[in-house]
Amino acid sequence: MQLFYTPDILPQHKAFILNEEESKHAVRVLRMEKGHQLYLIDGRGGRYIAVITDAHPKRTVLEIVDVHLDHEKRSYYLHVAIAPTKNSDRLEWFLEKATEVGIDEITPIICEHSERKEVKLERLNKVMVAAMKQSLKAYLPKINHSVKFDDFIRRKFEGKRFIAHCAEGDKSYLSTLLQPSVPLLVMIGPEGDFSKGEIDAAQAQGFIPITFGNVRLRTETAALMACIETNLLNRLGV
Amino acid sequence: MQLFYTPDILPQHKAFILNEEESKHAVRVLRMEKGHQLYLIDGRGGRYIAVITDAHPKRTVLEIVDVHLDHEKRSYYLHVAIAPTKNSDRLEWFLEKATEVGIDEITPIICEHSERKEVKLERLNKVMVAAMKQSLKAYLPKINHSVKFDDFIRRKFEGKRFIAHCAEGDKSYLSTLLQPSVPLLVMIGPEGDFSKGEIDAAQAQGFIPITFGNVRLRTETAALMACIETNLLNRLGV
Repeated sequence: MQLFYTPDILPQHKAFILNEEESKHAVRVLRMEKGHQLYLIDGRGGRYIAVITDAHPKRTVLEIVDVHLDHEKRSYYLHVAIAPTKNSDRLEWFLEKATEVGIDEITPIICEHSERKEVKLERLNKVMVAAMKQSLKAYLPKINHSVKFDDFIRRKFEGKRFIAHCAEGDKSYLSTLLQPSVPLLVMIGPEGDFSKGEIDAAQAQGFIPITFGNVRLRTETAALMACIETNLLNRLGV
Repeated sequence: MQLFYTPDILPQHKAFILNEEESKHAVRVLRMEKGHQLYLIDGRGGRYIAVITDAHPKRTVLEIVDVHLDHEKRSYYLHVAIAPTKNSDRLEWFLEKATEVGIDEITPIICEHSERKEVKLERLNKVMVAAMKQSLKAYLPKINHSVKFDDFIRRKFEGKRFIAHCAEGDKSYLSTLLQPSVPLLVMIGPEGDFSKGEIDAAQAQGFIPITFGNVRLRTETAALMACIETNLLNRLGV
């Protein structure tokens, strides 16, 4: 069934009017007609079943026949802070995959070794909306404005905070530290990794150093590994 | 330290001559000189430390000063059979990531719903060689010629065989079926998933249906999830 992302819809709505672009897509492109059913998702966990009552090409009118809140809500909260990759395709790729697998919040962090210091939030958001629709999810991950590393590590976070780095030193596996249902924040560094100073500063702020095993991973691969390991470990209740 | 992929080198070699392309790269591009050290990897687990004895721009001569076999050998064998994605970038992306995370063998399978029926093995191999070097591995995953689904499921495989599909029916998690050190084969379907007939045929041949949880994943995402879950589960000894 066709799925539309309509962030303006609210649970109490009995009817909804698709905007001009969506109406055109539904009526002109998809050739939908009066009586046809479609899904609306609000990006906040709400999934609605709607029926077309007026297949108007510019303002298609829908009747809401079913509302499902907290649709496929995950049992954990994952925030990944990632240094933007040199090649922005790699960051976009991560956001697509993380949205499919499950992630709640992303913060681009600008580090000492970061070559890219700017991100196009609108573009990144588009990538996540497409991935959310493609994977039939009702939650749109939140992406924050980029933040300097030093400012980011001083921010409050109600949960466990981790820093994944490749430098020497004591590191643990996520599996030994994860507490199901405790929110977690994982920081992933840039191509040149975090600097020694950044690693020390993060630990001084309470970040716990972690490793994904004896593998040397690209930034976006490590970030996705954090998402998939968190997903699996929560399922296993490890 | 610079790393070169030299599949022709053998453990008994005391010296080695880089081919013209590698010699040019070492001497002209990297400006390496007599006495400089570099790594050679053979793609079969062998990692060699070599010293340049003649920095010839067309046939650089190396002395092998150290040999390390089974370099970072993993404890498991993973074979992923994957239907080529419509967009070949997505298959290449999977191969890059799988090489980073750990995979042994890949077979492109042509399924009923496959839109792409051809793969460029040479190109895919290049992607894996680059990923192997970038992630400092000594093993190059093996990629086979594409095979029709019906032929593939009848092939012998010494280990556990799984089929990941999105259709209804009893499915288990990899975590409940994995036996550490038992080789595993995971089949991942095309964009349109395996057909009902294919799923039945695979089960008739002994393939066990698996799921990655309540998520709808793209072909390449599911394939990478198989690699990362196998990696983590073997580490956990689950």
